[in-house]
Amino acid sequence: MQQPVLPIAQSGTRTLAAELPSRAGDDVRLAGWVHRRRRLASVTFVVLRDRSGLAQVVVREPRALTQVEEIGEETVVEVTGKAVANPQTPGGVEVVDPTFHLLTEPARTPPVELWRPAVNAGLPTLLDHAPVTLRHPLLRAPFELAAASVAGFRDTLGGLDFTEIQTPKIVGSVTESGANVFKLDYFGGPAYLAQSPQFYKQTMVGVFERVFEVGPVFRAEPHDTVRHLAEYVSLDGELGFVRDHRDVMAMVARVVAGMLDAVRERAAGAVERLDLTLPKLPAEIPSLHFSEALRLVGASPDEPDLAPAHERAIGEWALREHGSDFVFVTGYPMVKRPFYTHPQPDDPRWSNSFDLLFRGLELVTGGQRLHRYEDYVAALEAAGQPLEPFASYLETFAYGMPPHGGFAFGLERWTARLVGVENIRQVTLFPRDLHRLAP
Amino acid sequence: MQQPVLPIAQSGTRTLAAELPSRAGDDVRLAGWVHRRRRLASVTFVVLRDRSGLAQVVVREPRALTQVEEIGEETVVEVTGKAVANPQTPGGVEVVDPTFHLLTEPARTPPVELWRPAVNAGLPTLLDHAPVTLRHPLLRAPFELAAASVAGFRDTLGGLDFTEIQTPKIVGSVTESGANVFKLDYFGGPAYLAQSPQFYKQTMVGVFERVFEVGPVFRAEPHDTVRHLAEYVSLDGELGFVRDHRDVMAMVARVVAGMLDAVRERAAGAVERLDLTLPKLPAEIPSLHFSEALRLVGASPDEPDLAPAHERAIGEWALREHGSDFVFVTGYPMVKRPFYTHPQPDDPRWSNSFDLLFRGLELVTGGQRLHRYEDYVAALEAAGQPLEPFASYLETFAYGMPPHGGFAFGLERWTARLVGVENIRQVTLFPRDLHRLAP
Repeated sequence: MQQPVLPIAQSGTRTLAAELPSRAGDDVRLAGWVHRRRRLASVTFVVLRDRSGLAQVVVREPRALTQVEEIGEETVVEVTGKAVANPQTPGGVEVVDPTFHLLTEPARTPPVELWRPAVNAGLPTLLDHAPVTLRHPLLRAPFELAAASVAGFRDTLGGLDFTEIQTPKIVGSVTESGANVFKLDYFGGPAYLAQSPQFYKQTMVGVFERVFEVGPVFRAEPHDTVRHLAEYVSLDGELGFVRDHRDVMAMVARVVAGMLDAVRERAAGAVERLDLTLPKLPAEIPSLHFSEALRLVGASPDEPDLAPAHERAIGEWALREHGSDFVFVTGYPMVKRPFYTHPQPDDPRWSNSFDLLFRGLELVTGGQRLHRYEDYVAALEAAGQPLEPFASYLETFAYGMPPHGGFAFGLERWTARLVGVENIRQVTLFPRDLHRLAP
Repeated sequence: MQQPVLPIAQSGTRTLAAELPSRAGDDVRLAGWVHRRRRLASVTFVVLRDRSGLAQVVVREPRALTQVEEIGEETVVEVTGKAVANPQTPGGVEVVDPTFHLLTEPARTPPVELWRPAVNAGLPTLLDHAPVTLRHPLLRAPFELAAASVAGFRDTLGGLDFTEIQTPKIVGSVTESGANVFKLDYFGGPAYLAQSPQFYKQTMVGVFERVFEVGPVFRAEPHDTVRHLAEYVSLDGELGFVRDHRDVMAMVARVVAGMLDAVRERAAGAVERLDLTLPKLPAEIPSLHFSEALRLVGASPDEPDLAPAHERAIGEWALREHGSDFVFVTGYPMVKRPFYTHPQPDDPRWSNSFDLLFRGLELVTGGQRLHRYEDYVAALEAAGQPLEPFASYLETFAYGMPPHGGFAFGLERWTARLVGVENIRQVTLFPRDLHRLAP
C-alpha cells in the first residue's frame, strides 16, 4: 500500500499576510503573488498578496535585488525571511532578509495594473479580462460580500427549520410566464431553462413546510440595461402555515438582518477596503400599501405599477421618516402579479404580495400564494391558460397544502446596492447578457 | 402608514409534533397534514404530520368522530387539544379532547398510500407523482441527508478559508470535453450548458486561493443507467499552494468527515427513520496507486481504467483490511484524464490524480492541475486542440498561478451510497434523464 495521505504540507509552516503582525521576531515563509514592486535608490519594497491580504517584504541585498528585477507583478513566489516590527509598515510587521523562490515562471504583465490602489480601466476591459482583473483587491471585494451574504441567508433560514433543496434547472414546459425563456435541445426534443424555482419550492412546502434554494435562474429577456442579466443567482425561500404575506415579510426582515450580520462578521475586510457604510435596518422595516405609495409619490391612483422614480422617492421617504434603507410596499394590483398570487381578502383588486425596496430599488419580491386547488383552477381559467401543462403543479394543491408564501432575492442586486454600484455586471463574476457570453 | 410587520403569528403558539413530549399537561395547538386515521370501535387515532415528525391525536367525542370521518389523509388541519402523557404512544405524549379546524378543503386520496410505514409503489409512480410521494417520511429522508451533507461540505470548507463562488451555467464554447453538452438558443446564437465549473474554479484560485461551489451541472450523455442523470448537483472545491494531489486528498478527507458529522448532527431523524449504518471513516483513508490497484484485483497491468467489478473489489479490500468504507485510488493513467491534469513527476504515464471510492463506487474525482502557461499550451497541442477557444482560461495561467488542485463530488451519488440505493433517481428530487423531463 502507498503511504497514507499526509496532513497538508504548508499548514504548519506557511504564514499568511494577515498573520504577520503576530509573528515579529520569527523566521517566516510566505507564499503568494507579487502584487507590487516599489524601487527606491538602495531598497526595493515587494508587496506580496495572498488570500488574507498584503505583506511588505524589504529587499536590500544585491543578489535579491537582481532577482526581484526579473520577477514581474503577478508572479507566484515563496518568500522566506525574518518578520520584524516596523511601525511605518501597514500592519506593523514586515519581512526582511528575504529569499525568493519562484513557483511559476515570471508572469506576463497583466492587461490592467492590479497594483494601483484605484482601478484604472473601463468595465469592458475589466470584464473581458475577468480571470485576472478580479484579483484586484477592490474588484474581488464584492464577491467576498456576496459569499458572506449567501452564508447569512442560509444560516438564518437553516436556524429557523428551513430545509435546503436543489430543484432542476431544465424544465419540460414553459408555465410561469409565457415568454422570455431559453430553449434547448434535450435529446432531440424541446426543453427550457427554469426562470425560477417557484413551482418546485411551493411543491416542497408540502414536504418540508419550510424550504430554501440558492441557485441560478435564467431570463431570456432582451433587456440591455444596468439592472438585468440573462443568468443570475436567486435566493429563494418558501414557508407554510403562514397567516398571510405579513408572516413572509417578517421572515424576509430576519433574513436581511442575518445577511447584514454575516457581512459584518465574515467580510469585514471587504467592507473596510471598499469603505462601505452598511445600510440602516431598523427593528421594524417600514411598510406602505401600494395605494398609499401612489399617494405619497403623487402618482395617479390608477397606476398599475411603480416607476423607478417612484421607488427612489419611496426609498428616500423611508430613510427620512423612519431611518431605514429598506421599505416594504405591499398589496400590488393583482393584474400585475402572477396567477398564483393570493388576493387581498377584503379587496381583491389588491394582492397579499410585497416588494422590499433597498435604497430605492426593488430587491425582494414575495407574497402569499393561493393554496386551494379550486382557486388555482379558477385563476388559470381566468388567465385563459390550459390546465394540462400545470398538471404536476396542481397535484400539489389537490392533495392538501397549507396557507403559504415565499420570497426571492436577486443576489447580484443585493450586492450592487450594498456596494453602491449602478451596473450589476460589476458584482457578477462572469456576467451573461445580450452581448456577453465569455469569459 | 400601514401597521408594521408583526412577528410570526404562530411561532409562539403552534406546537410542533417533536415538541409534544415536553408539553404534557398543556393546552396545545398543532398544525399539519392528516397522515393517518386508525378507526377502532369507540375511538379514532389521527396521526398528524408536520415538518418535525408525527403526533398522535385521540378522538373519542361523537362530534369530532363525525368530523374526522370527512377529513381524508393529506388534509391540512389545525388541532387544538390537551397534551397528556401516555406511555403507549410514540414519544410518550398524545393529544386528547381535540378540535379540528380545516385549513383547506379535504384533500383528494393520494395516488400512493403515504400513511403506510413501507412504500408500496414502483419507482415510475413515485417519480411521476413526486409532488405528493416525497411527503412519505421514508421518501423525504434522503433529502434531509442531502441538505445536511451540503451544509457540512460548506461549513468544513468555509472554516478552512475557502470562498464560495457562483459561476455561469451558460457558456459560449464547448471546451472541457468535446461532446455531450446541451445546446441552447442564446438570443439567436449558440450557447451550451456547463458540464462543470472546472475552468472557472481554477481561475478563481488566482483570486481567492481556495474556492468552492455547489451548483447544477449538465451532461447530455445518452446514458440510460441507474448511475447517470442529465442534470445533477456538483460539490466542487479547488485550492492553491498545494504540494501535489496529496494535499487535495487530505482536504477531501476533511470534507467527507465534515459531511458525515453534519449528517449525524443535523439529520439524525432521517438516519433513524431509514435505520442507516453510517459509513466507517478511519483517521487515515487507505490509498492505492492505480498500478497497485490493478495488481490487487488481478487485472492486466495494461488496463487503462478500473471496471465497476474492480472498484467493488477494491472497496471490499479497504473495508476488510483497513476498516474503511472509503479508499483513494491515485495515479490514473494520463490517457484517461483531461488535458489539465498534472502528470506524476517521476513517471508521466501516470497522473497526480485520484478517485475516492465510497463503498466500491466512484464518489469523488480530483487531482493536481497543471499551473504553468507553457504546460497548458503543450497539453492542448498534444491533444490536437486549437488554443483560441481556451483564450480566457489560458489568461489565468499566463498571469501567474500557484500549484493547485481540486475535487468534485456528485451529491446524488453521495446520498445514494449513504442510503444504500442502487438507482440515483431515488435520491434526486425531480430527476432529469433520457426519458424524464417532468415533473
